[in-house]
Amino acid sequence: MIGVFDSGIGGLTVVKKIFEFLPEYQVLYFGDTARTPYGNRGKEVVKKYALEAAEILIKNGAKIIVIACNTASALAADFLREKIKMPIFEVVTPTVDKALQVTRRQRIGVIGTRATVNSKIYEKLIKARDKKAQVFQNSAPLLVPLVEEGWLNKPETKMIIKKYLLPFKLQQVDTLILACTHYPFLHQIIQQKMGRQVKLINPGEETILSLKNFLNQHPKIAQSLPKNNQHRFLVSDANDKFRQLAVNWLGQKIKLEEVKI
Amino acid sequence: MIGVFDSGIGGLTVVKKIFEFLPEYQVLYFGDTARTPYGNRGKEVVKKYALEAAEILIKNGAKIIVIACNTASALAADFLREKIKMPIFEVVTPTVDKALQVTRRQRIGVIGTRATVNSKIYEKLIKARDKKAQVFQNSAPLLVPLVEEGWLNKPETKMIIKKYLLPFKLQQVDTLILACTHYPFLHQIIQQKMGRQVKLINPGEETILSLKNFLNQHPKIAQSLPKNNQHRFLVSDANDKFRQLAVNWLGQKIKLEEVKI
Repeated sequence: MIGVFDSGIGGLTVVKKIFEFLPEYQVLYFGDTARTPYGNRGKEVVKKYALEAAEILIKNGAKIIVIACNTASALAADFLREKIKMPIFEVVTPTVDKALQVTRRQRIGVIGTRATVNSKIYEKLIKARDKKAQVFQNSAPLLVPLVEEGWLNKPETKMIIKKYLLPFKLQQVDTLILACTHYPFLHQIIQQKMGRQVKLINPGEETILSLKNFLNQHPKIAQSLPKNNQHRFLVSDANDKFRQLAVNWLGQKIKLEEVKI
Repeated sequence: MIGVFDSGIGGLTVVKKIFEFLPEYQVLYFGDTARTPYGNRGKEVVKKYALEAAEILIKNGAKIIVIACNTASALAADFLREKIKMPIFEVVTPTVDKALQVTRRQRIGVIGTRATVNSKIYEKLIKARDKKAQVFQNSAPLLVPLVEEGWLNKPETKMIIKKYLLPFKLQQVDTLILACTHYPFLHQIIQQKMGRQVKLINPGEETILSLKNFLNQHPKIAQSLPKNNQHRFLVSDANDKFRQLAVNWLGQKIKLEEVKI
């Protein structure tokens, strides 16, 4: 199975991209809802949680792991690759590839959680590939709770987004990485505020496109993965909020299985 | 020692009340910063976390436990009292006492996290004591992140508070319980929006006053507690955000000790 894990519910936006680009494959999801969010936590804690999440996926049959969470990708991907001998996809690398493809003036913005921004991972990877690129990073911690509350179109949300985007506008970025699973819900408002000429990049989409590419190039692995729609959704806390957001976000009712952490 | 635990940083507002009303006593704090917040989680998860938090306090010498967190008080206090034979103070009971003392028209509002509101604990306890009382409850999930971001006086925060308070205004409550450790930071704005005639109740303050009363009535226990200002602050994730907010909130630098959970 294609295993996907996230700090909580946000990874469902990445699952949606699997349904879109790799619809034949069975998905196994784990959302660490008993310990969400990861975005304000320290590196060691995120590494521990990410390893436990990956182990839950493996125990339940995952043969490929997708780290849907930007924070876990930023802080724990190298650590997981040391510990686990299995293809591991994180969201940062394919996003950097895409950003460098589309940027015209090498002015790239990154908006994400505090932990992702503090890790400076996007900046490091972009500059390692293009020394002339300039990277502008800012965290936007209130966007996750606003999205989870479903406040997508409220005036307060628009005002807060405007405030968070101001430094990117002042820096005249031409490309903006939406470095958190929750932000694609705000794509339209962010595009409006940034202006049409700014390219927005959704790491979940880039990651699933790179996974698709990998499966095309590794037909044996692709053939070995089960193909059916008996997707499974594991969570560490099967609370009502997750259930309700899952319906809203995936457009279908899902059965939650609670696992002990 | 007086042990105080909270889902994260919010309980420092309760510690501040100990410094104010019981300044001679040594405090042992545990903030579960690796798993904060509790306010959107399910009951079983909160019970498990609360028991682990209490055990950390006991292992480190607590002789009295204060559950600073409203969510843990609402969902886990009875469970902790079954498991632990030690005086346990939670924030709900003294708050209900106070609300019933001050209400004039028995129209009491409760604003809190989703988990606290869904537990209906305030409503149950108030109605058990006064059948005629009417209780109006609403959750306000965005206030915790707004306070933690320090957005105390921003126009967006004021707009969001106004939205959350509207149902209480329509119901013409005369008393409003601020049923989350974070809300006292918004006391002034809430008082302004509700109007002067509405009494606001801070559960942390009521709880520490009831603890003070208990210590007055149990001099042997009071004498056995260490009296010095060598307070200890344990956390499950010693990240920078906690450190910074602790300075802002307590007005002093504190040394964090990280404990494994």
